[in-house]
Amino acid sequence: MSKAAIIGGGVIGGGWAARFLLNGWDVAVCDPDPEAGRKIGEVLANARRSLPALYDRALPPEGKLSFHTDLAEAVTGARWVQESVPERLEIKHQTYREIATIAPGGIIGSSTSGFKASELAIDEAEVVVVHPFNPVYLLPLVELSGPAEPCERAAAILRGIGMRPLTLRKEIDAFIVNRFQECVWREALWMIRDDVATTAEIDDAIRLSFGLRWGQMGLFETYRIAGGEAGFDSYLRQFGPSLSWPWSKLTDVPELDEKLVAAICAQSDEQSGSLSIRELERLRDDNLVGFIRALRHSRMAAGLTVLEHEAGLPEGGEHEGLPITSQRQVPVGWTDYNGHMNEAHYLEAGSWATDGLMRMIGVDAAYIEGGHSFFTVDTRLRYLAEVHAGDRLTITTQVLAAEGKKMLLFHRIWRGDGTLAATIETLQVHTDLSTRRSSLPDPAVAAELSKLVAAHRGFPVEGVAIGFSPAAVH
Amino acid sequence: MSKAAIIGGGVIGGGWAARFLLNGWDVAVCDPDPEAGRKIGEVLANARRSLPALYDRALPPEGKLSFHTDLAEAVTGARWVQESVPERLEIKHQTYREIATIAPGGIIGSSTSGFKASELAIDEAEVVVVHPFNPVYLLPLVELSGPAEPCERAAAILRGIGMRPLTLRKEIDAFIVNRFQECVWREALWMIRDDVATTAEIDDAIRLSFGLRWGQMGLFETYRIAGGEAGFDSYLRQFGPSLSWPWSKLTDVPELDEKLVAAICAQSDEQSGSLSIRELERLRDDNLVGFIRALRHSRMAAGLTVLEHEAGLPEGGEHEGLPITSQRQVPVGWTDYNGHMNEAHYLEAGSWATDGLMRMIGVDAAYIEGGHSFFTVDTRLRYLAEVHAGDRLTITTQVLAAEGKKMLLFHRIWRGDGTLAATIETLQVHTDLSTRRSSLPDPAVAAELSKLVAAHRGFPVEGVAIGFSPAAVH
Repeated sequence: MSKAAIIGGGVIGGGWAARFLLNGWDVAVCDPDPEAGRKIGEVLANARRSLPALYDRALPPEGKLSFHTDLAEAVTGARWVQESVPERLEIKHQTYREIATIAPGGIIGSSTSGFKASELAIDEAEVVVVHPFNPVYLLPLVELSGPAEPCERAAAILRGIGMRPLTLRKEIDAFIVNRFQECVWREALWMIRDDVATTAEIDDAIRLSFGLRWGQMGLFETYRIAGGEAGFDSYLRQFGPSLSWPWSKLTDVPELDEKLVAAICAQSDEQSGSLSIRELERLRDDNLVGFIRALRHSRMAAGLTVLEHEAGLPEGGEHEGLPITSQRQVPVGWTDYNGHMNEAHYLEAGSWATDGLMRMIGVDAAYIEGGHSFFTVDTRLRYLAEVHAGDRLTITTQVLAAEGKKMLLFHRIWRGDGTLAATIETLQVHTDLSTRRSSLPDPAVAAELSKLVAAHRGFPVEGVAIGFSPAAVH
Repeated sequence: MSKAAIIGGGVIGGGWAARFLLNGWDVAVCDPDPEAGRKIGEVLANARRSLPALYDRALPPEGKLSFHTDLAEAVTGARWVQESVPERLEIKHQTYREIATIAPGGIIGSSTSGFKASELAIDEAEVVVVHPFNPVYLLPLVELSGPAEPCERAAAILRGIGMRPLTLRKEIDAFIVNRFQECVWREALWMIRDDVATTAEIDDAIRLSFGLRWGQMGLFETYRIAGGEAGFDSYLRQFGPSLSWPWSKLTDVPELDEKLVAAICAQSDEQSGSLSIRELERLRDDNLVGFIRALRHSRMAAGLTVLEHEAGLPEGGEHEGLPITSQRQVPVGWTDYNGHMNEAHYLEAGSWATDGLMRMIGVDAAYIEGGHSFFTVDTRLRYLAEVHAGDRLTITTQVLAAEGKKMLLFHRIWRGDGTLAATIETLQVHTDLSTRRSSLPDPAVAAELSKLVAAHRGFPVEGVAIGFSPAAVH
């Protein structure tokens, strides 16, 4: 079990703790704040509810979480030390030196947004800028900056906890992301100050237009599309002159004085004050999960990061003597107005279990790419217990019968507390994807199926309705 | 039937045409380009595939689309004229004057991003800036600027086609949104020019971090959360000083010379060149649909715009003598690797039909709010035909039986081409939401159910498996 030490337990430190912990690392948090346990507990509650919901496989079992006020205790044995202490250079240097004497040779990552790697560097240890974004447990990006070799080692570890490292090719102030955020922030301050727009109007202007574009394609790909068939080149030339139009106040910096702070706070209270920060955080996280799950379907951007991480997560195992064909946590998006998992998502969970069984018998992506798959013709679901957001589901599959083109599966959906939540009986027909007609499976697939039928014959089955004489095999 | 005239048929004009047309307006496009028909056809194909997928109800039947080279022909009888001609003031003024003589009294909306309303104004007509964002058929925001009364009239019409008008409180250059986009664009140009990052790195930096945040909450609500329990006020004060740090190059404007254009184009080709613009557009639209559908679940931002629009869409009707309980188009996100609608989404469609039936018998939002609902205990699906993205589904519901706490429904899912795609037999039990136990429905609900049972008794039903003796009613 790898251990990560998190030095400084604020929002960012807490996010790091959650990210490592939910990916199976032991985490030692070092913070003098007596409230650190409560604060990190709250971040962790949000993370447990959302991070696993990105995946269609179960994450590894959580690591152990411990709290320390003693740096040496926290850092001993750590493979990764993440520093998120206040942005004061002398405090950071002092911390690094202490860490170096206790845990020499390890990587020290700094969450700094204000200092460059060359400023953080000390002789006694390898310090790398590892700049994440809030919420750290959901947003995949980390900016890396520092010496090449430790940056590479750090990048590998960060990929292992589902992140997407972006290593800077040049050392620059504020790195890349905050430069963009900063210029928008300045422009927004001007608008409030000049009463051009309120905080709510600005937020709507952003989230109902380019915000929706930038979460998926960024800036250049979006404009490439805008250029259309005529080509990006001609679009850029046309765009060029507008750079010198009087379109922004960016050539000056507004003074963030008392009056402007008060105006922003009053407007923000009116806009968002009916919700607590916790409620806003949960909304934000639910939306992030929804966005990233949409991107999974397109296999791009943050969705691709998740898919790449997921491919390495373990599968398989047995439960009550039957193979586990799917294991996952229930995303909030699967629940409905009755406050529980909607009926259709029981079947979605079953659909993933059918996929898992198909992979077991050799009907994997390559087989499907080769032009054959199984189609569902008949399914019966019995709902036995309610399931809630955050429940961890384990689905086993019993092969009831397999003959010629057909196979009859019986999924059991188990809740984490050992309750059987549903059973799904499903009749599948092997299909030629080019003709869309039923066909015989590959002999190797048929042989695997026969083995499973024989192995699963002893298990009692309740409530079977479909059996093996389907009305419609097309 | 209302008529909209679209003057100028480029990407923006095409987006406007699609937005009006899919919301049931007749659309007359006026463009001298002989390719206008093909170009608008392509935009429309994208829009047909994605806009209806935002909704869980069917949009009204499409209006009629016609193409014209004669302005008078296009504009006659139009309730809305949207001008998207090139950004040259004398062309715009001339166009407005011609429109005013043909269709006096109507609103002329201009898609301009470069001119202020006061610059566009003429004596003969009411001209309003109606600035949309690409793709116009999916992004809800429109910036409005101009005289108050026509702005209000325009806003009402825009809401009617599912958009979210933002009326500017002051007339400013470039309006609100482009100020933000412009400053990020300038910063990005500097980064390419100075070889700090490539187009692909910049796009990743944006779409894997704040891009995901800004599509849902914008700027101020995001930072409000970052401020945490300590409050926005103290966060702002802490943020203040960094405004004067050397964090961006915004105080200067890069020259977009040949060398910089060439560098951007080469990097963009490497990043996105393997996909055509059409393919990129479809990816973008699929992601937008996924994002906005996620926001529906949170009832906020673009999701709220859709829900508000949806509430006004018609429901009901009959098909083959049974009530239509749901009607909708299949979103791309409902399809799987077999190239058709995934099995679970047949049940999701059925779940919407159950909701529709529930509303018919008085089990509406208020009834559920009052603490009672129906839970599914047993369901059988028979898959009879494949369904594809973009198919329009009509679902009818037959009440097979209703007695005491139970009702047995039979949904038929019809494809747009008249094929029966699936049947769903589902046993529902009336439930007390506080105890989570079965209970008797309100007498008025029971009476409505009895009426439907009697009315539906004559219809033949095939493949009923569950019947009315469920094993588990809990």
